[in-house]
Amino acid sequence: MHNIMNSIPIVSFVGKSGSGKTTVLEKVITRLVKKGYRVGIIKHDAHGFEIDHEGKDSWRHKMAGAKVVVLSSPKKVALVKDVKEEMTVDALKFNFLNNNLDIIITEGYKKAKNPKIEVIRQKAESVCKGDKYLIAYASDIKLKTKLPCLDINNAKSIANFIEKKFLKNKLEQKVHLMVNGKDVSLKPFIAKLLIEAVSGMIRSLKDCETANEIDIRIRE
Amino acid sequence: MHNIMNSIPIVSFVGKSGSGKTTVLEKVITRLVKKGYRVGIIKHDAHGFEIDHEGKDSWRHKMAGAKVVVLSSPKKVALVKDVKEEMTVDALKFNFLNNNLDIIITEGYKKAKNPKIEVIRQKAESVCKGDKYLIAYASDIKLKTKLPCLDINNAKSIANFIEKKFLKNKLEQKVHLMVNGKDVSLKPFIAKLLIEAVSGMIRSLKDCETANEIDIRIRE
Repeated sequence: MHNIMNSIPIVSFVGKSGSGKTTVLEKVITRLVKKGYRVGIIKHDAHGFEIDHEGKDSWRHKMAGAKVVVLSSPKKVALVKDVKEEMTVDALKFNFLNNNLDIIITEGYKKAKNPKIEVIRQKAESVCKGDKYLIAYASDIKLKTKLPCLDINNAKSIANFIEKKFLKNKLEQKVHLMVNGKDVSLKPFIAKLLIEAVSGMIRSLKDCETANEIDIRIRE
Repeated sequence: MHNIMNSIPIVSFVGKSGSGKTTVLEKVITRLVKKGYRVGIIKHDAHGFEIDHEGKDSWRHKMAGAKVVVLSSPKKVALVKDVKEEMTVDALKFNFLNNNLDIIITEGYKKAKNPKIEVIRQKAESVCKGDKYLIAYASDIKLKTKLPCLDINNAKSIANFIEKKFLKNKLEQKVHLMVNGKDVSLKPFIAKLLIEAVSGMIRSLKDCETANEIDIRIRE
């Protein structure tokens, strides 16, 4: 099936804690940004984190019991939000990384159904054995595997691999549908029908004649 | 016009820098949370801010040039995102504070078209003179005004004022439409038509028969 809506590709860097994912990722991001790509990151943290700090206004509001605190400045937006259960990569993508990006890279999410690169050090065991979404290893030794084995110390070659695999011939994102919190894949003719029906309806509304960015959220 | 879609009310605390907005707000949030309301905060920062810190992984990715960094844990999500221009309150609300909230309180945004409470200290000048969206003052003295003048040191009475004004008889949010980055108000019958047409279309798709949460994003 031709997946018109998941056109911002996602690739996950997975691997044992301490394998050096963050360091590799940092260098790969730098390379991709240098090539002109717009990169979004989702970092999985099973143990929770502290991003806001004591004494800061945002922290004071959060401590006062607000569910969400958003800080907005002319160049940057930041948010801290309580969730009832962990959000899926799909939901994070839809809510926070939905446009103006060429690629999304996740750190972690070894169980998600995204293409994965495993960061693995000498003598360590793979955490992705038999995972059909595994597309390559990044290691400090040459592994015995049929998959590409990238040099962990050569960020340039890893960035080139990602570029070749995900960033050439990318489709333009035109419609993104999420139902009950899950992405729904649309065949091209269904996508076209939906775009035309919805755009037609909205453009017939007063002051919406030129609508080319439409966001609809329905909760029943 | 009956505005079915802006049903999460917004109220803004405005006032001169140093008037004590953050402190008042902190106490008011605590009161509202105690009453059982789910509160979201948007804090305006004209000068930029640092929420991520040197050495932290999120900071390292951001510095590597990523446009967006999202941290996701089982209980909390955080995000830092570059923007090309400052986001409007409407856009922040749509993107980040769209459900599971009873009220949104902003700190700042004195020019936005939301109901406002001005925090004002003795002898200071109002920053909202003639603003038709101003609904009350919170001050340490009794001001000469026709508007309600709340006691800045009585968070309970401010919270009660907000509750009475915004949180009784609230409508259920059913559809939220944003076109070209701006909220669009829908008359009830248009809202109903849109909900029925879109839900009908989506529910006719495979595996979407039970759709009751629908998100559509179109970019043409």
